[in-house]
Amino acid sequence: MKTLAFVLYPGITALDLVGPLQVASVFAAFDPSWDVVVAAETLQTAPTDTPLGLTASHTFDQLAERAAPYAVIVPGGTEPTFAALADDRLLGRIRALAAGAQVVGSVCTGSLLLAAAGLLQGRRATSHWAALDVLGRLGAVPVAERVVHDGPVVTAAGVSAGIDMALALVDRLAGEEMARTVQLMIEYDPQPPHGPIDWAAIDRAAFAPLITGMLVTALADHPRLRERLTA
Amino acid sequence: MKTLAFVLYPGITALDLVGPLQVASVFAAFDPSWDVVVAAETLQTAPTDTPLGLTASHTFDQLAERAAPYAVIVPGGTEPTFAALADDRLLGRIRALAAGAQVVGSVCTGSLLLAAAGLLQGRRATSHWAALDVLGRLGAVPVAERVVHDGPVVTAAGVSAGIDMALALVDRLAGEEMARTVQLMIEYDPQPPHGPIDWAAIDRAAFAPLITGMLVTALADHPRLRERLTA
Repeated sequence: MKTLAFVLYPGITALDLVGPLQVASVFAAFDPSWDVVVAAETLQTAPTDTPLGLTASHTFDQLAERAAPYAVIVPGGTEPTFAALADDRLLGRIRALAAGAQVVGSVCTGSLLLAAAGLLQGRRATSHWAALDVLGRLGAVPVAERVVHDGPVVTAAGVSAGIDMALALVDRLAGEEMARTVQLMIEYDPQPPHGPIDWAAIDRAAFAPLITGMLVTALADHPRLRERLTA
Repeated sequence: MKTLAFVLYPGITALDLVGPLQVASVFAAFDPSWDVVVAAETLQTAPTDTPLGLTASHTFDQLAERAAPYAVIVPGGTEPTFAALADDRLLGRIRALAAGAQVVGSVCTGSLLLAAAGLLQGRRATSHWAALDVLGRLGAVPVAERVVHDGPVVTAAGVSAGIDMALALVDRLAGEEMARTVQLMIEYDPQPPHGPIDWAAIDRAAFAPLITGMLVTALADHPRLRERLTA
């Protein structure tokens, strides 16, 4: 039995976790040699950036008693994720899980946590489009692509990109036919009402103050990290 | 303040709820005249078809003390959703919320619950591709499209289609610019690793026994409904 472990911490963007978790759960339903868990510091309900609360299936301590997960995937979020960049306990948990894993993944600003944990030094990686500069300041080589593979690391762009990343991971672990089957089961045949994002029409720089503002608030008690990330 | 209310019940497919909930939450963050809630019979953690537990923000009774929600959206699932087709209490809750709403929506097999609650009689509606026949047996006019609007009702196809449905709903409530902004924030620029679903290659009929098997199990104690839906 190989385990796909998802990390939960308070304040995440719910879809960052649930998109790839749904893909992984359907995959494991088709292939019982895989097992999916959601791990957190406690089994208390964690708030999210939506009105929904989320509860893990295992604590990190419980997970540590089992065989090391094959893959660990870290979701992102907004201020709470930026605050977590200074949370040594969470970063230590991520580092410990990653040390035993064959695949280390992230969704959205979850890649900032991987970078802060020292797992992306010099690696190509992605993040939410508005956070790519911050990712670079944490030592990764930011890449504006939807899913980026670099050795054992696979990172997804913002929020919904976790679905594409997880399907790419299923493809890597079990092949194209399984990836297509999972895609069919979750009927992932996207039709955004106004088509794909028109990147040429987006003034990315206009969003930088939004990210800086979140970092300043989230890292108020960590001036050195705050300075480094908002430079 | 207008409210977008999502229904939670035990055993749902997590992404059915979280996809559109994330879209709605980002929308409400940009337009504070909207408010988002997740309502359930209790505030106990509900299991899902993944290892994650979900907790509502309000009970149905708490929600009933407020102004009627503008929209109510019902997620689907597999066996637990089919079992809920015989759950008069849940159907009554959905009927009561729908009675005061301007928009009634569903994701995936959530449309079967709307139909079982008597809300889709003669209406064009969709569902997970494998459940369209069942939807027809419940009195709706099944349509194999990703998002189907019929008067106050908006239904989405399987699982991930809830994201497209919710963006279409934001478009309807607040216009194209807002829908595009939300799409950009959740970076919904889909790239399934093997492209869109190749429907021509899918033998839909081969999946009918899977659905029938789930209905037979889920409705074991409700032979008349079971007969009607598996005819």
